[in-house]
Amino acid sequence: MTPIIGILGGGQLGLMLLQAAIDWNLRVHILDPDPEAPCRTLCTEFMQGSLTDYDTVYRFGQGVDVLTIEIERVNVEALEALEREGKRVFPQPSVIRVIQDKRQQKQFYQHHNLPTADFILTENRADVARVALERPDFFPAFHKLGRDGYDGRGVQRIATIADVDKAFDAPGVLERAVDFDKELAVIVARNERGDVQTFPTVEMVFHPELNLVDYLFAPAQLPDAINQQAQDIARQTADALGIVGLLAVELFLDKQGSILLNEVAPRPHNSGHHTMRANVTSQFEQHWRAILNYPLGDTSSYQPAAMVNLLGEDGHTGPAVYEGLETLLAMTGVFPFFYGKALTKPFRKMGHVTVMDSSLDALREKVERVKAGIRVVSA
Amino acid sequence: MTPIIGILGGGQLGLMLLQAAIDWNLRVHILDPDPEAPCRTLCTEFMQGSLTDYDTVYRFGQGVDVLTIEIERVNVEALEALEREGKRVFPQPSVIRVIQDKRQQKQFYQHHNLPTADFILTENRADVARVALERPDFFPAFHKLGRDGYDGRGVQRIATIADVDKAFDAPGVLERAVDFDKELAVIVARNERGDVQTFPTVEMVFHPELNLVDYLFAPAQLPDAINQQAQDIARQTADALGIVGLLAVELFLDKQGSILLNEVAPRPHNSGHHTMRANVTSQFEQHWRAILNYPLGDTSSYQPAAMVNLLGEDGHTGPAVYEGLETLLAMTGVFPFFYGKALTKPFRKMGHVTVMDSSLDALREKVERVKAGIRVVSA
Repeated sequence: MTPIIGILGGGQLGLMLLQAAIDWNLRVHILDPDPEAPCRTLCTEFMQGSLTDYDTVYRFGQGVDVLTIEIERVNVEALEALEREGKRVFPQPSVIRVIQDKRQQKQFYQHHNLPTADFILTENRADVARVALERPDFFPAFHKLGRDGYDGRGVQRIATIADVDKAFDAPGVLERAVDFDKELAVIVARNERGDVQTFPTVEMVFHPELNLVDYLFAPAQLPDAINQQAQDIARQTADALGIVGLLAVELFLDKQGSILLNEVAPRPHNSGHHTMRANVTSQFEQHWRAILNYPLGDTSSYQPAAMVNLLGEDGHTGPAVYEGLETLLAMTGVFPFFYGKALTKPFRKMGHVTVMDSSLDALREKVERVKAGIRVVSA
Repeated sequence: MTPIIGILGGGQLGLMLLQAAIDWNLRVHILDPDPEAPCRTLCTEFMQGSLTDYDTVYRFGQGVDVLTIEIERVNVEALEALEREGKRVFPQPSVIRVIQDKRQQKQFYQHHNLPTADFILTENRADVARVALERPDFFPAFHKLGRDGYDGRGVQRIATIADVDKAFDAPGVLERAVDFDKELAVIVARNERGDVQTFPTVEMVFHPELNLVDYLFAPAQLPDAINQQAQDIARQTADALGIVGLLAVELFLDKQGSILLNEVAPRPHNSGHHTMRANVTSQFEQHWRAILNYPLGDTSSYQPAAMVNLLGEDGHTGPAVYEGLETLLAMTGVFPFFYGKALTKPFRKMGHVTVMDSSLDALREKVERVKAGIRVVSA
């Protein structure tokens, strides 16, 4: 009998994991606090409950053979207890613990000589103010909340001492802003036997205000040596963590041509959605391969691809309506994917569109047409 | 709000339609007689019930906006009633009616000058015996049950008069055996506005005894003129039927280089499973596009592909176990798909494997390794 797998979280990443799980007839249980979570009708069993409550996570874990996550804000103590009792928990609770806290993450990089932007740990806003006074050269900087930041929240840009009131009055990390040329991402998979496989490097273009990926291109257009650097650092990070599962590694390419580690996520990631269409193995199938200890899949791509995030239109809150599907479907190599969230909110991630073309120019032109052609509004 | 779609049938074709439906967040209800049907946990709503019972089909249809099928043995009278009341039923009941009955199907081809093997309608076994006596030149022939044949059942080869006792003692059609070079298939999609799009022609290799597709190659290796003939006949058949939805067209290439229509199916088909991985648009997405009246998708392929059916091992009946998944996953460009049927039986369709490679020789070699590497047995 195939194992029962549990996923903590039933949002869009869970949804895409479930879609990939159909291929191998995997039995998947989902835990999510939202009774209307997109995954609820697509999993073998759905349990409504908190991901951060010890008892809920522990009870959910009791009913499955292999436990994984689609979001890192989960109760790690419960996962540790389950792991001690012999459940297979991937990524491992120890890895989630490091990544959950951006302060630990940065110290981990430093300890393992992984290149990353200079940083100073801060306990509260007053700490940030002190640094601003004593080391004005450290700015502009980003102040990041240690825990519980997500989807662009939990990060503030502090250009000068004048911005110090935007800093978080909680444990955080102050990071010197990198004067970067590009933001890159490499998704790495690692299974229990230590096989490691990376996806081609992608270039992410962020929304200037929202700190969310606006769109990305894959593969990133980079000199070979720089691409190799990005791939190597991603692989070294996965090995240093010893993760079993997917690790999404976000990187900066600075103006001096060096690669710096930014942040990592121990799960499928927005920067890999295009792999569902553009690559031999998708990031979602790769996650299953990694945590079930199967051979990792070929990550090469069929064609250059782009991915556009569909964010809820500003000024619209309510039942979601996708306008323009027909326009998109009239284009070739354009693949919309909707997340099935009942309600749209300004800038909420409501879906994405993968765009493919053998010509990079045609790809860029299609991206513009896609961005102009579809929007998510309230009914 | 997106329409609620109902599918009559919740087997593997329904399963693959559901998997494709996730992309656009379609709400899909399923009717199937088997309470353990593979689709039961993946649809928005599952109803257990007979597909051939008027009241059951009618009641199921009342709850949806658009109704479609994944099997043609359904109660057409109920579909006609629903259609009269304004439900959108695709393929149309009139098309299902013609295709359900192989006698009507053959007469339809004849009426529309679509090339097909010579045939004689028979009412019973005595009719077949009479033809055998009067026209020995008509043999070898195939006797096909008019209605309710499926998956290789309902067809008997009658080589000479000595085989007449194998003929069906029920209304059927006696078809002169075509001395064919190859068996081909073309899947066609047609939407309400009359747009028609064909998938590349595939070559099917049948199991010598079971009358089931053993494996297929896509695209078929054919001279351009012959391929064009196959594509044209498929398109003409879809237009003649006026079908909205997918039409799978099975063809013979005879030894004289002519294409003859064999049979058609008004739904996704075994000969198109590889399109999930190998083509820009899969047959399943194309079915949704056709019945929802969206623009049809690009059917071109990324790479040559093969598809191997996974049949239940002879001598094994019981809870299904797939042996060899790991072997398959260690090969590149090999994509197993399991149907989630609880029980295996000898030669039951339990899954398929899509195989891709840019080299045809490598593709053939991989097919052999796949066939040797996996089997479905009982626990």
